[in-house]
Amino acid sequence: MTKVSIYFIRHGIAADRAGYDRDGDRPLTEEGHKKTKKIARKLNHLGLKFDLVQHSPLVRAKQTAAIFAEQGYPIAQSEYLAPEGDFQKWLDWFRNWQESGISPGINGGGRSDLSLGLIGHEPDLSAWAEVLLWGEVRSVLVLKKAGIIGLAVPEPETPIANSLLFMLIPPKILL
Amino acid sequence: MTKVSIYFIRHGIAADRAGYDRDGDRPLTEEGHKKTKKIARKLNHLGLKFDLVQHSPLVRAKQTAAIFAEQGYPIAQSEYLAPEGDFQKWLDWFRNWQESGISPGINGGGRSDLSLGLIGHEPDLSAWAEVLLWGEVRSVLVLKKAGIIGLAVPEPETPIANSLLFMLIPPKILL
Repeated sequence: MTKVSIYFIRHGIAADRAGYDRDGDRPLTEEGHKKTKKIARKLNHLGLKFDLVQHSPLVRAKQTAAIFAEQGYPIAQSEYLAPEGDFQKWLDWFRNWQESGISPGINGGGRSDLSLGLIGHEPDLSAWAEVLLWGEVRSVLVLKKAGIIGLAVPEPETPIANSLLFMLIPPKILL
Repeated sequence: MTKVSIYFIRHGIAADRAGYDRDGDRPLTEEGHKKTKKIARKLNHLGLKFDLVQHSPLVRAKQTAAIFAEQGYPIAQSEYLAPEGDFQKWLDWFRNWQESGISPGINGGGRSDLSLGLIGHEPDLSAWAEVLLWGEVRSVLVLKKAGIIGLAVPEPETPIANSLLFMLIPPKILL
């Protein structure tokens, strides 16, 4: 079992719904691209390295993940991170990943701690974080586009109502 | 009544207890001075302006406040911010300050929103923040020395279990 930091990252600024039949097709705007790139670089520069970045299948989340991939992190799509995705199924995956202690990417396994990035949507991301923090959704966390929430997940037990919040960074702080 | 952002700021790195009869006499170390100064400047540069910075009477908190004062913010000592200070009495003061909508300092009153800095100690600061967020202490917020927690306090009602967390910045992000 391995200690994990989970970083919930909201996708960058995306195009308006007008012009797109499906919400999932909306891409990042030019501003969204630019700001997200700055933030991904800054986080890397600050020493935050992801062993894996999971992302929602929606275009704006995929594009956000691609920007993080430029920093050298492995990325993987997860349907659980789509809006109203299945938290329980994601948690099963997570527990398994944490137990194996093996990242499929740059670290090659056997590490004593892992960093996992989750790129998705609101209100799901902050709701997931809140369940890990205090076991229920309280809707008190404010996560802006390209903002980031950092949670420390304990080693041996369930992360639910058992994690610590060590970071909540509004995007403007990293620009 | 005025909308308020409250920033809970933990004092900078202080000297060890050895060599000081009273805990309250411990000053910031040179490293504590330097890092706190960088952080105060960075926050100012990021557009965070305080209408008032309240601080605990302990030396390490006073010195931290003096560093913030160099950025042009008015500072004021409050015994409530000492370790195990009286939250209820502080809350009475706060409600009064919020209602008056008048800062004693750089803004001169009549503002539609105010920013209040509170420089103090752990575990008190994060416990106060938690009571404002969800009405009780859960001990899930991690506030390092010279770290900062930002809460948005609503206008008309009690802030208890009624505020939003929009910021939790570990010091290394601002150095």
